[in-house]
Amino acid sequence: MTESNLDFTIQKLGECRFSSPVSDRHFLTDNDLLLYHSQLKDFKPYSDMWQNLPAMELAGPRDKIFFDPNELNCGIVTCGGLCPGLNDVVRAVVMELHYGYGVKKVLGFRYGYEGLVEKFGHIPAELTPQNVSRIHEMGGTILGSSRGNQDPCEMVDRLQALKIGVLFTLGGDGTLRGAHAIYEEITRRGLNIAVIGIPKTIDNDISFVQKTFGLETAVSEARRFTYAAHSEATGARNGIGLVKLMGRDSGFIAAYTSLADSQVNFCLVPESVFTLEGFLKALQKRIEAKGHAVILVAEGAGQDLIVKDVTRKKDMSGNILHEDIGGFLRDEIKAYFKEIGVETSVKYIDPSYTIRSMPANAHDSAFCLLLGHAAVHAGMSGRTDMMVGSWKGEATHIPISLAISKRKKIDLHGWLWETVLASTGQPRVM
Amino acid sequence: MTESNLDFTIQKLGECRFSSPVSDRHFLTDNDLLLYHSQLKDFKPYSDMWQNLPAMELAGPRDKIFFDPNELNCGIVTCGGLCPGLNDVVRAVVMELHYGYGVKKVLGFRYGYEGLVEKFGHIPAELTPQNVSRIHEMGGTILGSSRGNQDPCEMVDRLQALKIGVLFTLGGDGTLRGAHAIYEEITRRGLNIAVIGIPKTIDNDISFVQKTFGLETAVSEARRFTYAAHSEATGARNGIGLVKLMGRDSGFIAAYTSLADSQVNFCLVPESVFTLEGFLKALQKRIEAKGHAVILVAEGAGQDLIVKDVTRKKDMSGNILHEDIGGFLRDEIKAYFKEIGVETSVKYIDPSYTIRSMPANAHDSAFCLLLGHAAVHAGMSGRTDMMVGSWKGEATHIPISLAISKRKKIDLHGWLWETVLASTGQPRVM
Amino acid sequence: MTESNLDFTIQKLGECRFSSPVSDRHFLTDNDLLLYHSQLKDFKPYSDMWQNLPAMELAGPRDKIFFDPNELNCGIVTCGGLCPGLNDVVRAVVMELHYGYGVKKVLGFRYGYEGLVEKFGHIPAELTPQNVSRIHEMGGTILGSSRGNQDPCEMVDRLQALKIGVLFTLGGDGTLRGAHAIYEEITRRGLNIAVIGIPKTIDNDISFVQKTFGLETAVSEARRFTYAAHSEATGARNGIGLVKLMGRDSGFIAAYTSLADSQVNFCLVPESVFTLEGFLKALQKRIEAKGHAVILVAEGAGQDLIVKDVTRKKDMSGNILHEDIGGFLRDEIKAYFKEIGVETSVKYIDPSYTIRSMPANAHDSAFCLLLGHAAVHAGMSGRTDMMVGSWKGEATHIPISLAISKRKKIDLHGWLWETVLASTGQPRVM
Amino acid sequence: MTESNLDFTIQKLGECRFSSPVSDRHFLTDNDLLLYHSQLKDFKPYSDMWQNLPAMELAGPRDKIFFDPNELNCGIVTCGGLCPGLNDVVRAVVMELHYGYGVKKVLGFRYGYEGLVEKFGHIPAELTPQNVSRIHEMGGTILGSSRGNQDPCEMVDRLQALKIGVLFTLGGDGTLRGAHAIYEEITRRGLNIAVIGIPKTIDNDISFVQKTFGLETAVSEARRFTYAAHSEATGARNGIGLVKLMGRDSGFIAAYTSLADSQVNFCLVPESVFTLEGFLKALQKRIEAKGHAVILVAEGAGQDLIVKDVTRKKDMSGNILHEDIGGFLRDEIKAYFKEIGVETSVKYIDPSYTIRSMPANAHDSAFCLLLGHAAVHAGMSGRTDMMVGSWKGEATHIPISLAISKRKKIDLHGWLWETVLASTGQPRVM
Repeated sequence: MTESNLDFTIQKLGECRFSSPVSDRHFLTDNDLLLYHSQLKDFKPYSDMWQNLPAMELAGPRDKIFFDPNELNCGIVTCGGLCPGLNDVVRAVVMELHYGYGVKKVLGFRYGYEGLVEKFGHIPAELTPQNVSRIHEMGGTILGSSRGNQDPCEMVDRLQALKIGVLFTLGGDGTLRGAHAIYEEITRRGLNIAVIGIPKTIDNDISFVQKTFGLETAVSEARRFTYAAHSEATGARNGIGLVKLMGRDSGFIAAYTSLADSQVNFCLVPESVFTLEGFLKALQKRIEAKGHAVILVAEGAGQDLIVKDVTRKKDMSGNILHEDIGGFLRDEIKAYFKEIGVETSVKYIDPSYTIRSMPANAHDSAFCLLLGHAAVHAGMSGRTDMMVGSWKGEATHIPISLAISKRKKIDLHGWLWETVLASTGQPRVM
Repeated sequence: MTESNLDFTIQKLGECRFSSPVSDRHFLTDNDLLLYHSQLKDFKPYSDMWQNLPAMELAGPRDKIFFDPNELNCGIVTCGGLCPGLNDVVRAVVMELHYGYGVKKVLGFRYGYEGLVEKFGHIPAELTPQNVSRIHEMGGTILGSSRGNQDPCEMVDRLQALKIGVLFTLGGDGTLRGAHAIYEEITRRGLNIAVIGIPKTIDNDISFVQKTFGLETAVSEARRFTYAAHSEATGARNGIGLVKLMGRDSGFIAAYTSLADSQVNFCLVPESVFTLEGFLKALQKRIEAKGHAVILVAEGAGQDLIVKDVTRKKDMSGNILHEDIGGFLRDEIKAYFKEIGVETSVKYIDPSYTIRSMPANAHDSAFCLLLGHAAVHAGMSGRTDMMVGSWKGEATHIPISLAISKRKKIDLHGWLWETVLASTGQPRVM
Repeated sequence: MTESNLDFTIQKLGECRFSSPVSDRHFLTDNDLLLYHSQLKDFKPYSDMWQNLPAMELAGPRDKIFFDPNELNCGIVTCGGLCPGLNDVVRAVVMELHYGYGVKKVLGFRYGYEGLVEKFGHIPAELTPQNVSRIHEMGGTILGSSRGNQDPCEMVDRLQALKIGVLFTLGGDGTLRGAHAIYEEITRRGLNIAVIGIPKTIDNDISFVQKTFGLETAVSEARRFTYAAHSEATGARNGIGLVKLMGRDSGFIAAYTSLADSQVNFCLVPESVFTLEGFLKALQKRIEAKGHAVILVAEGAGQDLIVKDVTRKKDMSGNILHEDIGGFLRDEIKAYFKEIGVETSVKYIDPSYTIRSMPANAHDSAFCLLLGHAAVHAGMSGRTDMMVGSWKGEATHIPISLAISKRKKIDLHGWLWETVLASTGQPRVM
Repeated sequence: MTESNLDFTIQKLGECRFSSPVSDRHFLTDNDLLLYHSQLKDFKPYSDMWQNLPAMELAGPRDKIFFDPNELNCGIVTCGGLCPGLNDVVRAVVMELHYGYGVKKVLGFRYGYEGLVEKFGHIPAELTPQNVSRIHEMGGTILGSSRGNQDPCEMVDRLQALKIGVLFTLGGDGTLRGAHAIYEEITRRGLNIAVIGIPKTIDNDISFVQKTFGLETAVSEARRFTYAAHSEATGARNGIGLVKLMGRDSGFIAAYTSLADSQVNFCLVPESVFTLEGFLKALQKRIEAKGHAVILVAEGAGQDLIVKDVTRKKDMSGNILHEDIGGFLRDEIKAYFKEIGVETSVKYIDPSYTIRSMPANAHDSAFCLLLGHAAVHAGMSGRTDMMVGSWKGEATHIPISLAISKRKKIDLHGWLWETVLASTGQPRVM
């Protein structure tokens, strides 16, 4: 099939004469078209302007590489909270370095950036195809992790001392900032050490990456908890099941889980502000109509309702520590229905660390493999200060500075949130 | 962030002076760039040529609709083999018709296209939000299915008799051809009946759809079998675990499963031809080096090795019936190692119908919901002779004639197959 | 093989001359012998005394039955908290009444004992083989439940009004007391209504029943949470994973889960008293030796440590409401290690309702089927004021008055607790 | 509560005047009583005859032990086919030897009894708490296995050479015979080497052990396949799902799976003979009544139907190799319905090695821990030529000669088979 055969014209029965019964949706027009092509060179036949389009570098192996594999030592470090797939990535990096390039020595730094600072005394583990062979079957990280950054100078000292040529860092926003600081110190010293980030955020909140590893596993696991909440809700008169999920600033896990378990009736995320009164009234309506309800709340949702004059606390990675919206809503729901004289049975479920500690599911295992290989190829080619990512189904390279320039959040006018609203039936504004 | 801030330039340490140790890879060049944007209108600022780029219509709700929801009856039918998510789609269509548009009557035709032909005597089931409420938790299809097409005239007779305005068909290539034939008969009669296809192929072999529902679940389930094969392979001296998976013409399930379970050492798919001798020699090398091996074979792989003078048989849907490559390989492997005097323990596992009969996993449940809603929006807007699909993470509309113009197959130069080769370590040519 | 061949004599190499290195175990002697036979009549050949041994009636079908199946209406009710397998039992009772005896009408009372009281206005659901066909695949209870007993007079009024001949009650200690009260009112009125209890307690705390349904599923599910705790514990320096499980008065779930996940290092149950200081010292020792620890605590454990002058609250079923030992321990552990200057990372996981809301696993499904059938046989034979149970692998009948005479607790000198101590390595006394 | 309070008398409403509508059941009488007590010493108060009752030795730690832990080397070997829980037992043995007794050296012999014969050249692995720490999470056996026995003299030579004091053997009937032969050779030479068997048979066919490890996991896994068969059966007109499970001589897995998945309509086991005609007629009746059917067949069932003049083949362990009853039934069913002019859709599923290769579920993990500890205690006490087992919920010691004296089979008059018949609704005789 040649391109000239590509006729995407859709047949229509005739003119549309009726208005959609739902008036507050984000409607599409005939100008909402998706490009068939993704790669920049596919546009060359059409115009000369193709060179000016914003485009990311595709990840993958290069013909010419920067490092001599026979002389190269690599290091890998996992930072921040656990996330399904950490061990998959570690394994993939080690395997591809060994079998793909013949790199002999890979060091696993222990307990996050602490492991890069000599004074903590953590001995790096030598990682071999043998000792990483089955680590992907395990949750957590065999390297251990810690929160917070360390002094770039001390870290680069150790990289030099151990003759590391490529450092792979797995972590989120804070870890990427740390990686960038390491890169800057390396540049200042004029060293040939590449720093390659692999984005790890179970919240999926890093920009320019469509989905981060662990998200799919998190949704699979989260669905177990909404299932439980639904059992509880239907098992009692006016039963209300309330589940709190991860999602400090971005509610992707909650949103996708709402789609994966269509029994969810309310999905509350940080991106969509709501009033307590609006929510409780909508909940009351639902209870009156159906006799039960399932509510999913991301931990960062509704913070304005509970945090008022409280000075915001931060954890060691600089993340704002949130008040417990779950417990807050549970109490408010109980109080509200008590006041209006409706007997309810409210069950609150907080999976906390359970979701992030599980092994990767099949999707994430495959994805982590791809990312691990992509990171190795990028490092071997001498690229640095970048992270590997995923865009439109392809693995890509992203400058770290761009990746940390803003948090990714749910687009309240995109298909994800639209579908959440349609599936839950919750009001767009409440 | 404005577009002018989008600097995707990647830092490099310096010139690449070494050649990649692996010479037969598909290497990328600096021209391999991925567009940041996907939607056609995003290109307007850059050039006027944007209107001529090949682009698909995005799926979603429209402001104006063709059918009056108060008068509309809809029908839905599931055809061909089982696939995880069928019930999810049925539920999503019913729910969105009911709650999104206020359509009151949805009929579920029984046992595939048979249910659209009066003489078979299958009474359609009336589908309501109540009776489909928990069907997505079940594997299979509550409507029943059958293979093969029926006479378009008889089917349109029944659609007319039941006053159906939109018919949703779930099925693969053959079912889409059937839907197109129904559309043609409708057009011939000048009726206002829309036909919307929802692509269902566990093999993921329909073109212009990046992933079809059920694939992710299939890979999740398939990984259980490769896990078993790995246990068996490592549990015996020179243990060889051989798993046959679905994949008549396209080996996507096998390829993705190889990535999802990195213990797979050989992945054989229809797209990549191999000689028996080449494969057996590579297997011998693996056994000598590691003492065990896991082989994954798609049912359509290596057909040239076994089908020679046999006249090709077809099933009722017109699919070519394949000889059992699994049993063939098992026997050939045993014979080969016996001949060269190496004692092996070969365990053959054929999951057959198990994989396709399971309920959808979280990913597919969410995806089916999205597709079901997209199909409803398309039908309500009066679109017809089209199917809903998924492209670069967005739901889209595809003309059926385009979708059935060719089978989708693994690109042997794309990242999927490259990563399979890198992960398994199998030779590119054997 | 005849009985005279049964030679259970064990060979020994010789005299035992060494003392066991562990001195505080419960050791066995040569008099610790287990009877081969279980059924009373098997003892007849040996002695006339067999008639005087304490023995339970075996459950199962009887040749002669009390009720005329053609005239009989039955009722079933689920009370108290959710437990995996409720729907399995409901289904089994309906199926066996219908297919085993030809009983046509089975009513499912809604929302526990409330459904037996007319004023609450809950219409009973008519249960048929069709509408219960797939309910066993779902967690929760399709009938709904509620806590607390109702007035026996009102309940018997309704049983009479609906012409119920056999009432099946699923519930724990409180529900059995309610069933007994119903029986007494029935007896007072001289009615032919049988009351058959089916013990439902996820805590496994009903006496004269070796294992209650739901326990095995609970342990399976609980193991997911200890797995998560172990991932967290090993993922940080001095990581401590703390999981709270059900177990108000009896710690069976925690104890069995410790055996099912041998990564658990401390198992705290209500039956085994400990001091805070003793526990914290033992934990410190573990952390110093291994760098991580997993702690499992039953909700009723260590209540003496936190409840002091607090007046004990009770829920509507009369169960004492416990203070949260999990949160208490988390805080005490953190404070202790802070005081002694050891940095730790404590992760607290409270699965709460998740475990009890899941569908039954294979073991419990089979067990529930057996119990449901046993209950039907007992009811049809006119037995009353009894519950079905399980003893030494056989289904049995137990008078309700005996069953509620005391709570079942872990025997601190039995194999279960001994094995917990051996597997965790925790001190017997702390 | 004292014994004198134990009143197990069951209340009855009155005389039973009706006959049970099902006439061919195994009915109970008032003499069917189950003993409350299990341990022999509990009978002492009742009579002096208690010493003569057949009774098994309870497993557990003893005060005095035979071996000096400081001087002792132990060995462990896994033989025959895979079974869920093998690694759990290996781990439990190593952990209890190390932590419970202070034994320093435990050798894991590779690839079954081959590993005990020097000429095969398999180096034993030294097993430590560190390297077995997470093996219980994996299916298969880390030691590898092989079928068949080896020369006892050669095996004892090696035990002597390696100064092994206790040998733990995991395997079925054949392995136990091998262990007994080793014991005899040890006795002939007058050595102080104990041989302790741990019964491993996924078929649960070893006598004097109520349930063997792996059975519960097998049933859990098998239920997935009957689920798939049910999806297929209900997804087509006159759909028939046929699943073949393990069970050469004993159909326990099939029987328990029928209870665990009550959608099974026919359960065919080796113990219950049937005619092809009888079965097909019963199947026809079911199809006519319900339009679908699920059939479960143990691999050893109906062998008389297919094996006629064929000389019986045996595998290396001496097990009779069975013809494929699954394929046979599939073909016969298709032919039968074709002949009577009924269109059916028959789907055959053969899980083969998948079930046995999975990790142990929670139940089996706990059980394996108990058995492993029991084996260690038995070995340390100098017991030999015995195996550990499980009886009425207690761990026991059984002489190997008794254990191998007969195969355990389903009692066709016991509750298990009775419940299978009641649940499936299949005729007792067909």
